[in-house]
Amino acid sequence: MRSDGRKPNELRKIRITRDYLKHPEGSVLVEFGDTKVVCTVSVQESVPPFLKGKGQGWITAEYSMLPRATQTRNIRESVQGRVGGRTHEIQRMIGRAMRTALDLTKVGERTFWIDCDVLQADGGTRTAAITGAFVALADAVIKLYTEGVLTTTPIKDFVAAVSVGIVDDQILLDLNFEEDSRAKVDMNVVATGSGMISEIHAMGEEHTFSREDMDKMLNLALAGIRQLVELQRSFFEVRGGLWLRKNVREASLEG
Amino acid sequence: MRSDGRKPNELRKIRITRDYLKHPEGSVLVEFGDTKVVCTVSVQESVPPFLKGKGQGWITAEYSMLPRATQTRNIRESVQGRVGGRTHEIQRMIGRAMRTALDLTKVGERTFWIDCDVLQADGGTRTAAITGAFVALADAVIKLYTEGVLTTTPIKDFVAAVSVGIVDDQILLDLNFEEDSRAKVDMNVVATGSGMISEIHAMGEEHTFSREDMDKMLNLALAGIRQLVELQRSFFEVRGGLWLRKNVREASLEG
Amino acid sequence: MRSDGRKPNELRKIRITRDYLKHPEGSVLVEFGDTKVVCTVSVQESVPPFLKGKGQGWITAEYSMLPRATQTRNIRESVQGRVGGRTHEIQRMIGRAMRTALDLTKVGERTFWIDCDVLQADGGTRTAAITGAFVALADAVIKLYTEGVLTTTPIKDFVAAVSVGIVDDQILLDLNFEEDSRAKVDMNVVATGSGMISEIHAMGEEHTFSREDMDKMLNLALAGIRQLVELQRSFFEVRGGLWLRKNVREASLEG
Amino acid sequence: MRSDGRKPNELRKIRITRDYLKHPEGSVLVEFGDTKVVCTVSVQESVPPFLKGKGQGWITAEYSMLPRATQTRNIRESVQGRVGGRTHEIQRMIGRAMRTALDLTKVGERTFWIDCDVLQADGGTRTAAITGAFVALADAVIKLYTEGVLTTTPIKDFVAAVSVGIVDDQILLDLNFEEDSRAKVDMNVVATGSGMISEIHAMGEEHTFSREDMDKMLNLALAGIRQLVELQRSFFEVRGGLWLRKNVREASLEG
Amino acid sequence: MRSDGRKPNELRKIRITRDYLKHPEGSVLVEFGDTKVVCTVSVQESVPPFLKGKGQGWITAEYSMLPRATQTRNIRESVQGRVGGRTHEIQRMIGRAMRTALDLTKVGERTFWIDCDVLQADGGTRTAAITGAFVALADAVIKLYTEGVLTTTPIKDFVAAVSVGIVDDQILLDLNFEEDSRAKVDMNVVATGSGMISEIHAMGEEHTFSREDMDKMLNLALAGIRQLVELQRSFFEVRGGLWLRKNVREASLEG
Amino acid sequence: MRSDGRKPNELRKIRITRDYLKHPEGSVLVEFGDTKVVCTVSVQESVPPFLKGKGQGWITAEYSMLPRATQTRNIRESVQGRVGGRTHEIQRMIGRAMRTALDLTKVGERTFWIDCDVLQADGGTRTAAITGAFVALADAVIKLYTEGVLTTTPIKDFVAAVSVGIVDDQILLDLNFEEDSRAKVDMNVVATGSGMISEIHAMGEEHTFSREDMDKMLNLALAGIRQLVELQRSFFEVRGGLWLRKNVREASLEG
Repeated sequence: MRSDGRKPNELRKIRITRDYLKHPEGSVLVEFGDTKVVCTVSVQESVPPFLKGKGQGWITAEYSMLPRATQTRNIRESVQGRVGGRTHEIQRMIGRAMRTALDLTKVGERTFWIDCDVLQADGGTRTAAITGAFVALADAVIKLYTEGVLTTTPIKDFVAAVSVGIVDDQILLDLNFEEDSRAKVDMNVVATGSGMISEIHAMGEEHTFSREDMDKMLNLALAGIRQLVELQRSFFEVRGGLWLRKNVREASLEG
Repeated sequence: MRSDGRKPNELRKIRITRDYLKHPEGSVLVEFGDTKVVCTVSVQESVPPFLKGKGQGWITAEYSMLPRATQTRNIRESVQGRVGGRTHEIQRMIGRAMRTALDLTKVGERTFWIDCDVLQADGGTRTAAITGAFVALADAVIKLYTEGVLTTTPIKDFVAAVSVGIVDDQILLDLNFEEDSRAKVDMNVVATGSGMISEIHAMGEEHTFSREDMDKMLNLALAGIRQLVELQRSFFEVRGGLWLRKNVREASLEG
Repeated sequence: MRSDGRKPNELRKIRITRDYLKHPEGSVLVEFGDTKVVCTVSVQESVPPFLKGKGQGWITAEYSMLPRATQTRNIRESVQGRVGGRTHEIQRMIGRAMRTALDLTKVGERTFWIDCDVLQADGGTRTAAITGAFVALADAVIKLYTEGVLTTTPIKDFVAAVSVGIVDDQILLDLNFEEDSRAKVDMNVVATGSGMISEIHAMGEEHTFSREDMDKMLNLALAGIRQLVELQRSFFEVRGGLWLRKNVREASLEG
Repeated sequence: MRSDGRKPNELRKIRITRDYLKHPEGSVLVEFGDTKVVCTVSVQESVPPFLKGKGQGWITAEYSMLPRATQTRNIRESVQGRVGGRTHEIQRMIGRAMRTALDLTKVGERTFWIDCDVLQADGGTRTAAITGAFVALADAVIKLYTEGVLTTTPIKDFVAAVSVGIVDDQILLDLNFEEDSRAKVDMNVVATGSGMISEIHAMGEEHTFSREDMDKMLNLALAGIRQLVELQRSFFEVRGGLWLRKNVREASLEG
Repeated sequence: MRSDGRKPNELRKIRITRDYLKHPEGSVLVEFGDTKVVCTVSVQESVPPFLKGKGQGWITAEYSMLPRATQTRNIRESVQGRVGGRTHEIQRMIGRAMRTALDLTKVGERTFWIDCDVLQADGGTRTAAITGAFVALADAVIKLYTEGVLTTTPIKDFVAAVSVGIVDDQILLDLNFEEDSRAKVDMNVVATGSGMISEIHAMGEEHTFSREDMDKMLNLALAGIRQLVELQRSFFEVRGGLWLRKNVREASLEG
Repeated sequence: MRSDGRKPNELRKIRITRDYLKHPEGSVLVEFGDTKVVCTVSVQESVPPFLKGKGQGWITAEYSMLPRATQTRNIRESVQGRVGGRTHEIQRMIGRAMRTALDLTKVGERTFWIDCDVLQADGGTRTAAITGAFVALADAVIKLYTEGVLTTTPIKDFVAAVSVGIVDDQILLDLNFEEDSRAKVDMNVVATGSGMISEIHAMGEEHTFSREDMDKMLNLALAGIRQLVELQRSFFEVRGGLWLRKNVREASLEG
């Protein structure tokens, strides 16, 4: 039994609240236990210079935390005058995950800005961000289709992410902050609705792990992602490649 | 009648949700209509160098907007590498308002960090921020008192803020974004529970206004602030200078 | 009687020296007592991107102090790598004041850069800057007219500014540094030649003030501005909406 | 057969030149084919503030490329005024790998700065950097031991890294730039001399991969790392936990 | 004859106005023709970290131009967020010149901040700055002596600077902007009252010059510096190594 | 005899290795004793805005040191977020020297980026950089000619540089770091193959020097440059103004 009463292979309570903000083309509040992340998608009618004239789209992700999302206050990156290494690492991962989800050759010369802002952090902010951002991104694509801007909804598959770690020699799913800070090995996995892997990042901070541990962790992560995709699925109706919104405002998964 | 059905002297629906986040010493979500601001207070056990050894405290405020709090996406100040002029202007006003509320000579060598992060913007973000931040600050002070860190609750008075403007030759209270963008004159007022003024900032962007308009606008603003203070009052019980929390999680004022 | 011998409602010695530098389209040295500010106006034949093609002009103001304008040396903002909050606040106020003075729809797609650089600071640098910058701006506009670039001199009215404050419970006009640092309430007012208000910014640093104090302070400020406008008037001849230079190199007002 | 004549499971020619520079405590030039990286280790007699007084050491890594290490010239990060996301991602990985190699509790309050500067880039710069930096780090530790500063050589194990990718549906070891730019999936693995894994980072840029591909890629990477460790081993003599330098200036591995 | 009527070996009108500002320990306005530079000296009672505890002082110089000191407006370095190469080059030269003038071992652990701010530029700003800064520095040193902070006036010698250049195959002294922009070779020389050289910087922008030209240019520069030192000398009385102020407010040299 | 056994007028061992890197249009490793600098030339098919449409080319130089090129580690300028004064001073000198060597009116609208990166520093990095960069620049120009991009090789003359200094009252050529740090006067000279001077920068850090010393130093420097040009000459065959590559990979000069 874990400190919050979960079994090793159990997710925290997961909740996604759709249309969380009124301005963005897509927006959700995603909660993995006490971790709360606002994910918004903004559509810009142009692409970065290196893609101009190529007839395809682009996705860029940015990630930030409110100064007091954490136990002690963090200095704003705007005040420090630069974006830190951890932020870069996370937002690059979010961007890659979203580019896996969307067929960029079929969205025209548009940029989808994914903004993930952490209101409250309790471990797993990047995996919550990816899981929530997918829903906001699909909503934005469907909006473009509904408005006639796009003639299809070129979403390739669901994409979700979860963390796994080794804590006190036990492999645990979806670590909270307290577990994460004691973990010897920490792994984040991004995978699709059909079980294909988009990204794996496993690392032993000052520790190492065996090939066998790697296999077990990966199995557990993929099982967790299957559940997260089921939750995402409750927001959409997919028929013959066409994605549509179900009339669902909020959905949750009991841990 | 205004575009959202309000009378000229009517506030929007105002709502304050207390203890909005779990980590900060004080935190609220404050809503002025569709404007939503998270206000947190973080207590740091030291003061800036220029106050060291003087036995008094300090308050610093920071303000930011999520990139898609607005109708079109804003570039993050962390990405631009610097805090902009509008942000500086607003956070300096929030800081001054909070320093009016608290007797800094009685809080020890502590810094209160006020963070106001706008989730959604529809006009009046700075006045919402001040009105909400006061509640979070008082909660943080009461927490220090409850934990025995402070022996009193040196809050001097309630502090709230509201905007007034001249739109189509009419003086309106608590402008929303659409009204604000058409206003010829725009005024923000910060005042206390006893009706004393902390700050007035009135300006005609490319227009001017008469002494008479000024008087009318100020009267209207002070009347609005009285209502906002009533809302703030519902969260506290003040007896003989001692401030205590009432068991209220959320309070609202119908516009 | 004040420390420098003035009566409460008395300005310091004010002096404006025209054509102070040879390169700018307009330039003055303005002195409010020991406060000395160089104001220059530079005309650029283009506007910022957000105004391109709209057929109107723009005004941008920048403000800075020499490192040793003050009693102790300040670190240059170029060395700090960023413009500070106080600077932002002041230069935004100067820009608004100048945009009140000029009809931007009649100057073509041109930008007027207002640069106010403080050589010596003794309180009231922002009000001196506004009062002086108006003269430099009008000179630049007249120069464009004289050269045939403009067919009119679209100056709407004189614009000047002054400070008022409450020091030792007395309301004083045009504070010097020593008074300013003891003031409980500090107000800056910008107004036009016809007595209309452009901007009021009143604030009680850790103090508050009554509605009645506000009225008295505003009256005093408007009276001071009337005198400053008289001084500005000595540089120009205005006939039927057309502004022309009088052959005056320097004018002053005894405090 | 690959474009450079290698078999799929074949490394490029790998060469490590020891004592490449005269000032650092440890330095090598490492070459993976045409990829050339200078790795230096600098020992500083203090630790970052968060570790002060804890009696342990720290390792920080920095990575950079000469502007013309690549086919087209890159703008220097010093000129851009900030370190980019890719650089952050790589230098964090190098730092983690080196912290796996060294027992930080036994080096005193010292910081080991690892600097990896790419002279010429042809794919695999981060894996070359890690493989070379280990040798420079061990040399620096041995130097401290030889000088009597340390009483042991607290190196835990060899650490090396290699890349694997899927190109044209074939799994290839140690990608060069041309292969890397065509790869659908790209994986970097860091492992130790005893075959334990320190870090795995696998990602499909706009593509996904199966669990089975993952297993094959990992097997190939671990086989490659075994060869790299053999090359590293030729520089050291390890007896009873004590590491000593063999008199070897340069060692290479034919691809 | 030159465009401004001077002979090739003639200086422009040079004027130094002492005590130009009231706050600094020393301050002058120096004019070389239409070039006008404010030089101030600020004394700080500490030295940079690398000198702490060594019992000696330090001199640091900073140089800047008002945005409209020049024919077209320059962007402020504070707005650009960094100090440019030309500024660095000039302020380093000013610093070296001033360190030649003062015996830093006899001023205690103090830093002399030299600030040279160009109000109006017409060529030769760096040589004007050096020539004026010396007077301000000597005044600051004498002030410290007069106040009893120093027991001597450890000024080693007068230091002044001038430019020379080759324009239309003629060697000219003290170039103005128009000459400077046509010059094929440009040389700045810093020398002392006894004719010893502190610095020579000669360069042919896209041109070269002979050894013979070099000798002629240097002769001319040294002759010009002798005149500048005479002007500086009119401000001081030097008796037995002790420097005192003469009661001179302004001195000039007809070109 | 000097600490490294050289006579006062003797260069260190100088070596230039051509085609040091594979990507740039020209690249060398230049060694002046233990000072090692990589010089690369990158050709860009455009010019800076101020030259657009003028039909001529441009040369820009950048200089940097690896963090551990020196005895103690330097903080990277990318981490500091700005390029320092010394770097600016050096890279401006390199740029001027290269602009002396090339007829910019005959290279079309192209920019030649000169990058000089110091691998190891032991005094004289700027003079080594200039001497090496010339060879890389000429190689790049010849490459453009060979590829038919240019119809001539518009190199005006050889350009090389050397340092001279006064150490212990003796005038020494080509100072190493230890000598440089003891030198009272330090001079860098850039000159051409025909003995014309491009730049002289002589300065006495807190010391001065006589006209006579200046002459002796300059003579010694010019003699040193003649030797360096001989070394450069071994890489090229110049016939009737046309420069061609000799088949030489490396050439050196014994000190």
